[in-house]
Amino acid sequence: MNLKKIIKNNQLEPYFIKGSFGIEKEGLRTDASGHLSQTDHPAGFGSRSHHPYVQTDFSEAQLELVTPALDTLKQQYQWLKALHDVVNRTIAEDEFVWPFSMANILPEEEDIPLIKVDDYREIRYREKLAEKYGRKKQMISGVHYNFSFTPEFLEKIDAHVKSEENADEWRNDLYLKMSRNYLRYQWVLTYLFGASPTSHPSLLDSGEIGPVRSLRNSKYGYHNTFSDNVSYESIENYIRDIEELVQNNTLYEEREYYGSSRLRGAGKNVCQLVNNGTRYVEFRSFDLNPLDPLGFSYEQSLFVHVFLLTMVWMDEDNKDDDIKVGIEKNAQTALEHPFEPSQYKEEGRALLDLMKETSLELGLNDDYKAALDKAIHLFDHPEETLSARIVEEQKDRESFIEYGIELGKSYKQLSLEKPFLLNGFETLEMSTQLLLFDALQLGVKTTVLDEQDQFLAFNHKGDKEYVRNGNMTSRDTYISHWIMANKTVTKKLLKDNDFAVPEGEEFSSLEEAKDYYPIARDKAIVIKPKSTNYGIGITIFKQTPDRDAYEEALSFAFSEDDSILIEEYIEGTEYRFFVLNGKVEAVLLREPANVRGDGEHTVRELIEIKNTHPYRGENHRAPLAKIKMGEIEALMLKEQGYTFDSVLADNEKAYLRENSNISTGGDSIDVTDDIHESYKTIAEEIARALDVKVTGLDLIVPDIHVPSTEENKGYTVIEANFNPAMNMHAYVQKGKGRRLSKKVLEMLYPNIERS
Amino acid sequence: MNLKKIIKNNQLEPYFIKGSFGIEKEGLRTDASGHLSQTDHPAGFGSRSHHPYVQTDFSEAQLELVTPALDTLKQQYQWLKALHDVVNRTIAEDEFVWPFSMANILPEEEDIPLIKVDDYREIRYREKLAEKYGRKKQMISGVHYNFSFTPEFLEKIDAHVKSEENADEWRNDLYLKMSRNYLRYQWVLTYLFGASPTSHPSLLDSGEIGPVRSLRNSKYGYHNTFSDNVSYESIENYIRDIEELVQNNTLYEEREYYGSSRLRGAGKNVCQLVNNGTRYVEFRSFDLNPLDPLGFSYEQSLFVHVFLLTMVWMDEDNKDDDIKVGIEKNAQTALEHPFEPSQYKEEGRALLDLMKETSLELGLNDDYKAALDKAIHLFDHPEETLSARIVEEQKDRESFIEYGIELGKSYKQLSLEKPFLLNGFETLEMSTQLLLFDALQLGVKTTVLDEQDQFLAFNHKGDKEYVRNGNMTSRDTYISHWIMANKTVTKKLLKDNDFAVPEGEEFSSLEEAKDYYPIARDKAIVIKPKSTNYGIGITIFKQTPDRDAYEEALSFAFSEDDSILIEEYIEGTEYRFFVLNGKVEAVLLREPANVRGDGEHTVRELIEIKNTHPYRGENHRAPLAKIKMGEIEALMLKEQGYTFDSVLADNEKAYLRENSNISTGGDSIDVTDDIHESYKTIAEEIARALDVKVTGLDLIVPDIHVPSTEENKGYTVIEANFNPAMNMHAYVQKGKGRRLSKKVLEMLYPNIERS
Repeated sequence: MNLKKIIKNNQLEPYFIKGSFGIEKEGLRTDASGHLSQTDHPAGFGSRSHHPYVQTDFSEAQLELVTPALDTLKQQYQWLKALHDVVNRTIAEDEFVWPFSMANILPEEEDIPLIKVDDYREIRYREKLAEKYGRKKQMISGVHYNFSFTPEFLEKIDAHVKSEENADEWRNDLYLKMSRNYLRYQWVLTYLFGASPTSHPSLLDSGEIGPVRSLRNSKYGYHNTFSDNVSYESIENYIRDIEELVQNNTLYEEREYYGSSRLRGAGKNVCQLVNNGTRYVEFRSFDLNPLDPLGFSYEQSLFVHVFLLTMVWMDEDNKDDDIKVGIEKNAQTALEHPFEPSQYKEEGRALLDLMKETSLELGLNDDYKAALDKAIHLFDHPEETLSARIVEEQKDRESFIEYGIELGKSYKQLSLEKPFLLNGFETLEMSTQLLLFDALQLGVKTTVLDEQDQFLAFNHKGDKEYVRNGNMTSRDTYISHWIMANKTVTKKLLKDNDFAVPEGEEFSSLEEAKDYYPIARDKAIVIKPKSTNYGIGITIFKQTPDRDAYEEALSFAFSEDDSILIEEYIEGTEYRFFVLNGKVEAVLLREPANVRGDGEHTVRELIEIKNTHPYRGENHRAPLAKIKMGEIEALMLKEQGYTFDSVLADNEKAYLRENSNISTGGDSIDVTDDIHESYKTIAEEIARALDVKVTGLDLIVPDIHVPSTEENKGYTVIEANFNPAMNMHAYVQKGKGRRLSKKVLEMLYPNIERS
Repeated sequence: MNLKKIIKNNQLEPYFIKGSFGIEKEGLRTDASGHLSQTDHPAGFGSRSHHPYVQTDFSEAQLELVTPALDTLKQQYQWLKALHDVVNRTIAEDEFVWPFSMANILPEEEDIPLIKVDDYREIRYREKLAEKYGRKKQMISGVHYNFSFTPEFLEKIDAHVKSEENADEWRNDLYLKMSRNYLRYQWVLTYLFGASPTSHPSLLDSGEIGPVRSLRNSKYGYHNTFSDNVSYESIENYIRDIEELVQNNTLYEEREYYGSSRLRGAGKNVCQLVNNGTRYVEFRSFDLNPLDPLGFSYEQSLFVHVFLLTMVWMDEDNKDDDIKVGIEKNAQTALEHPFEPSQYKEEGRALLDLMKETSLELGLNDDYKAALDKAIHLFDHPEETLSARIVEEQKDRESFIEYGIELGKSYKQLSLEKPFLLNGFETLEMSTQLLLFDALQLGVKTTVLDEQDQFLAFNHKGDKEYVRNGNMTSRDTYISHWIMANKTVTKKLLKDNDFAVPEGEEFSSLEEAKDYYPIARDKAIVIKPKSTNYGIGITIFKQTPDRDAYEEALSFAFSEDDSILIEEYIEGTEYRFFVLNGKVEAVLLREPANVRGDGEHTVRELIEIKNTHPYRGENHRAPLAKIKMGEIEALMLKEQGYTFDSVLADNEKAYLRENSNISTGGDSIDVTDDIHESYKTIAEEIARALDVKVTGLDLIVPDIHVPSTEENKGYTVIEANFNPAMNMHAYVQKGKGRRLSKKVLEMLYPNIERS
């Protein structure tokens, strides 16, 4: 079959350029002085037995980050970023991930720790590799790029395939052609992206060799020459050759086959490729890019994609002999001096021109074009290739190791700056980011079903769960939402269960509400629309209102809703109780935006100082909001006899807002361990009465140290929130942060292995 | 203590005039010819062992309707109306409820069936009553009016009560004063509301006595004179006298005490009144009002309330001797001729003046005022009293029995006219009305928590359930709602589970959506906002759109939402599958508004004829909507070559709308039993995959008779609705109605006794 012709004739280019993309990235855990870490794989990652995202390779210190197969390169990069945050925040404080393919300071062979797993066969396999290649060689790390076409594309092609050819056959042929041509031209990738010019002597004394493009891709890298003899001319040959290598004990297992392109099928054995076809191809020739915090740049990923498409699109179809040429050219390119032009420059330029032509024919977007132009430029400017830039940068540093420490630590710092955000998914609400982080860390398979809607899907060993907004789960009932969403219903239900709620009535007629005056005037009252929204339409009468003011307040409330509530006004401080799965996990006091004087600074300066706190940000992308200096704040200061230029006396407090919302600059103060236990019991009982697993209860408690008793309840329930902000509790102004998202995961997967 | 003074000094009148109101109303099941029914209590009511609303009294044919204690008289009437609907729609088609206190045509004593219950003691008690009073006497029916003050009022008074008096003591005294004065003046109620002037000879030959105000309140009624000697001067006396009557076997049980006012405490025994106080008082002197479909009018209820308040508010405090006078006056009044003025007219007018004064002092509203004015008028116009009007009306009829049949059947008809509505609760959505009906019928204790929000609370033997919109329950999970609310998530989840869904993509950027054109142009497509709302913003391209039209449709959709969907357009007919608790309970085809010709009538006439169907109504208060004759309909006709004045040929069909919504006059056609089982299985599997108990699935099925197979699925899932309209399936244009609300109850209470 002629794939290109089918695609062109049927305008299937839009389907051809889609794909499924994954990245596996290795990296060594490194101590502060640049030595290979001797510590165990962190327990924070949960169990390696099922972890889909963070694994260990040969050594206990050799991390492997694995993205799932994703529909777009953008998603691939979201995940790669997020997994780096997960790793950087989970490894020990004094460790970081080594940014180079060539290892950090290695101990003696025998002191390089193998992976510590329970499976004896896994250990034995590593021991055999260690004997055969040496442990040090195994520490050379890299990036694997996994690619497949979409099922949609493949099905569309199926319709045009001749009947004598079955689907698996032509698909194998497709991926074989891609692999053959890839192997023929992989040297171009090494020229552009080779990034292991030097090495520390504990692994390899590169001083004698001099700087090169890629030690890892060269004969000094981790490589077996017997792998170079595997045929890619047919799937049968491919399988036969790999199986033979195992049968004659050249390889211990099939997976020891280190070809730069490996066809992956449904099962572990290559023989299954015949009946089940190739699922995806793994391309393994990439050095870690130490100049990118993720070890592989988005631009690289774009380039590789169009490179792979070209390998299929090109009319040229290389044979096994050509592959040998390609392997040879790659080895030579790897040992070229970074600042020298490529010895195969013309061939390289020709391929890039073909790639550009291909990208135009396929209608690839401008991002691809930019990546191609950059590569063309690099063929004329070897000094700008990755390897050259690394050599250049290293000159200013004391050593390869110093440079690695500097880069590695700075990349780790990127993940630590804003621990409340998950890079790659910063547009999600904070609560969802926290939960997503926890799921990735613990190795719960996760899909972001809908970013706008904060929708995550989890799947742990087939046990599926869906979560919205970080806390809406299958553990709560449908009706509980509606009970909490309706203030009148919540109150009736709580009152029926003997909890203290503000007295009051609901009215849907202005006349009836007016008739209620004789009762209403009896006490301090709040008049509010039934569905309150950020305090709009609310009037508080702390003293008996006169009839006019009362009726005005009624009209005001009715202007916002068809129904209004008239409730007694309760004095005291409001606390947010976060109840999760039957237990109060956090109690928070929110204080209106304020500054405290030191006898020196003006209010303006105090605000500016307070706003530098890393937890303060904007647009709900930080746990606390920056205090604003607008009209409302000025007015509030004025009422207290201040302006922004007033200097506050030592310890004197000025408020900038009346309301205690975090979103208007308020402080969050965790009082979970300070409040009397009796109130937590009350909150837990309330959640039970409402039959909810996740709720944020607002209780007014005049004194949190005086126990609640039957006679003197000491609290009033104001509201039950069905979508309480978990993030508010995670990073607080004062007190202990409470990571509630972890408790959500515990609720959903109580039996997941945690170490 | 001086209650009146406390109330006045502390302005507690608004609390004093509140109360808790209940009504118990007896009524005989009657066959078409006016005889006492000999059939069993209908199985449709479920089990009498727990039924809180519909019970039987002495005889199997003597229904007792019991409202719960309610906060307002309006609610009392809502419930009384609703319970009448329940009864009228549950009893046999050829039976009705006798509207008079005096019985229908009774058989011989021994043929009057006692209640058929399992409890031997209950049977034995009735047998003893039968021996003592005769079965016929027991068949005289009436209304009991239950009243108590609110706990709020009582608590407010408590604060002002002297310390030596305990709460239960003064509360008992309060209700005793009310009772004493009630018994002294009850004759006024008999004058006004006496409504048993005549009787059928099978019970009592009233011909000899002549028409009177109230046979039931007279010596001919069901009455025991020994009850008249119970003292109301103190709670101790009251208890002592009733207990003595039982001890000396004058009464078989305490409940045989038939005083017109009975104090009810926490338990069954009167002695508990000392320690637990009076909970409410039962006033028993009311005849059935045959001129009101409910047997007791709202106006009567208002009058009785202000009467009771006056009994407490008046300074006068009658003693046991005065009570005897009152009982005597009542007996005499009962035997007065309906058209004669009252022999105690002056006393009556004086009391009414006092009541009016009281109502002014208490600030009662105009409804009370009207009821009082009417009563004052009646003292000058005995010919307008209830008893007189009945006598007058009866003159025109053949007999008492004919009159009773006429009234009884007409009242029953009121409940049958619109079987899809529940009188008293007509403002609720239809689905909620259906469920409420079913709950009341089956005897599930129900509270309407919030009418606007369609919120019901159920409590069956402590097992509480909450339901919103008739179908949102605790059986569904919180997240299932959000899954169904998000079309993209629903589709991803269904696709992952291998169900057929329209292919397509979501876009939140116009540019990206434009780039999708090469793929979109491939097939018939629908472009729509992600959150569709009644079809706004949707464009359908049944043929390949050109780029301009495509981009215009994108902008159109984006004008409605931040995200849009581009999906393949699926040809075929859409069916609604209602899945409930794992099972497809109904499948509905909705056809656009249409008429079918007969060769004679114009389209306009055909519409008018079709609109007379009892199921067609307006404002969502009927299962089907009336077909309108507006611009859209005219245009639609024009496209088919018609006007409203066209005469359609026999069997020729004209459509008035393109969309198949019921709300725009569409037809509903039940196809549950016609569609191939395989589609029901698919729908049940979809519900399982979504993990939902209640959902309305919209599937496009080109041919419902061709089975769905693995190769030829034959369906596409378009949408899963989390709030599907149950009412749509209950009353259909064609086919069998499906009462899904009953299935909701079955799901919530699988073990409830159903007979």
